[in-house]
Amino acid sequence: MQIVIVLFDRFTALDAVGPYQVLASLPGAEVVFAAEQPGVIGDDAGLLKLTAEASLADLPHPDVVLVPGGPGQLDQMHDGPLHQWLRAADQTTAWTTSVCTGSLILAAAGLLKGRRATSYWMSVAQLGQYGALPVSERVVFDGKYVTAAGVSSGIDMALALAGRIAGAETAQAIQLGIEYDPQPPYDAGSPDSAPAEIVRRLESRSRSILTGRDR
Amino acid sequence: MQIVIVLFDRFTALDAVGPYQVLASLPGAEVVFAAEQPGVIGDDAGLLKLTAEASLADLPHPDVVLVPGGPGQLDQMHDGPLHQWLRAADQTTAWTTSVCTGSLILAAAGLLKGRRATSYWMSVAQLGQYGALPVSERVVFDGKYVTAAGVSSGIDMALALAGRIAGAETAQAIQLGIEYDPQPPYDAGSPDSAPAEIVRRLESRSRSILTGRDR
Repeated sequence: MQIVIVLFDRFTALDAVGPYQVLASLPGAEVVFAAEQPGVIGDDAGLLKLTAEASLADLPHPDVVLVPGGPGQLDQMHDGPLHQWLRAADQTTAWTTSVCTGSLILAAAGLLKGRRATSYWMSVAQLGQYGALPVSERVVFDGKYVTAAGVSSGIDMALALAGRIAGAETAQAIQLGIEYDPQPPYDAGSPDSAPAEIVRRLESRSRSILTGRDR
Repeated sequence: MQIVIVLFDRFTALDAVGPYQVLASLPGAEVVFAAEQPGVIGDDAGLLKLTAEASLADLPHPDVVLVPGGPGQLDQMHDGPLHQWLRAADQTTAWTTSVCTGSLILAAAGLLKGRRATSYWMSVAQLGQYGALPVSERVVFDGKYVTAAGVSSGIDMALALAGRIAGAETAQAIQLGIEYDPQPPYDAGSPDSAPAEIVRRLESRSRSILTGRDR
């Protein structure tokens, strides 16, 4: 089972590595980090560098595709080699998946039309612009399309997907293997639970980033 | 504030990248992935490659040290350059931390004597062999020494540490930024909650790995 995790400049590291840690433990899984061109790809903070071992063009028929998000998503919204590869690969995937704003890339490539889908809490409404049906849930399955909310939600998505692919017992063994018994020290992980002032601060910071970049 | 995340061959990716995603968002944080020799370092599955930008020797005075775990920990238990660097760096760190079996490396380097510490659920008892006081908790603070349980627990540890370093509001903003509102699809993340048969299966697999490697 070939699982391709797509990398692009300024992806968010945990979007990719959270699900990777789960999916790499699936029996028979061959996980490949791939990008338009193979090589070293920097994350959104410019501090972490992951190697893309293959070019997307060399992997035409993956069983599973996973698209992470991150600030670099903004540069992946126009039609081009990534969208073309996604559309072609999607024709034969068993599962086409995303984490965070990766769903906006899938949607912009035309793959989520009429599908229920989620994204980063601040971005989920944008899915509607591409014909998807935005849902504020942590993990959304619609047929073979599986989208996760922001960053850390990719771990939950990957465990749910592992259950679908290999059964609940295997998924539970993977969960125990990564000791995923989360105990966040604060209750601030969603806009519903976080203090309102913190939600406003993040929204305001995000607007200023977008304005600064003329988008 | 310089934060050094130590890499070594066959580390577990999420041990390093989970806390990275949190700590890189701290105001003024400079996170550096470092290893004995700079270069590309492969994870325990051999599928993920992270770049170590610096050699440990070039970073003698980090403010924070984080040691991940993983199967490669077994090769880092003897005195040598890593232990020597850890002992020297620890003399001036504000925080010396680990995830998963990274605490066994800290302990073997002599840094956890008489300290309460945790580790991967299957490995926590081994801490006693090095004079540490094993504690089966997800995140353990003892003075400036902070140890986390298995793999995914590094996210919880890093958020707690972010709160100590920069205050609860900043830590909550980081938590919302990574949408850390965990919703695992199964309740199997600790040996107390997972089905007993799955616990036994993992313990048996681990024993056979250790036996096969003559340890």
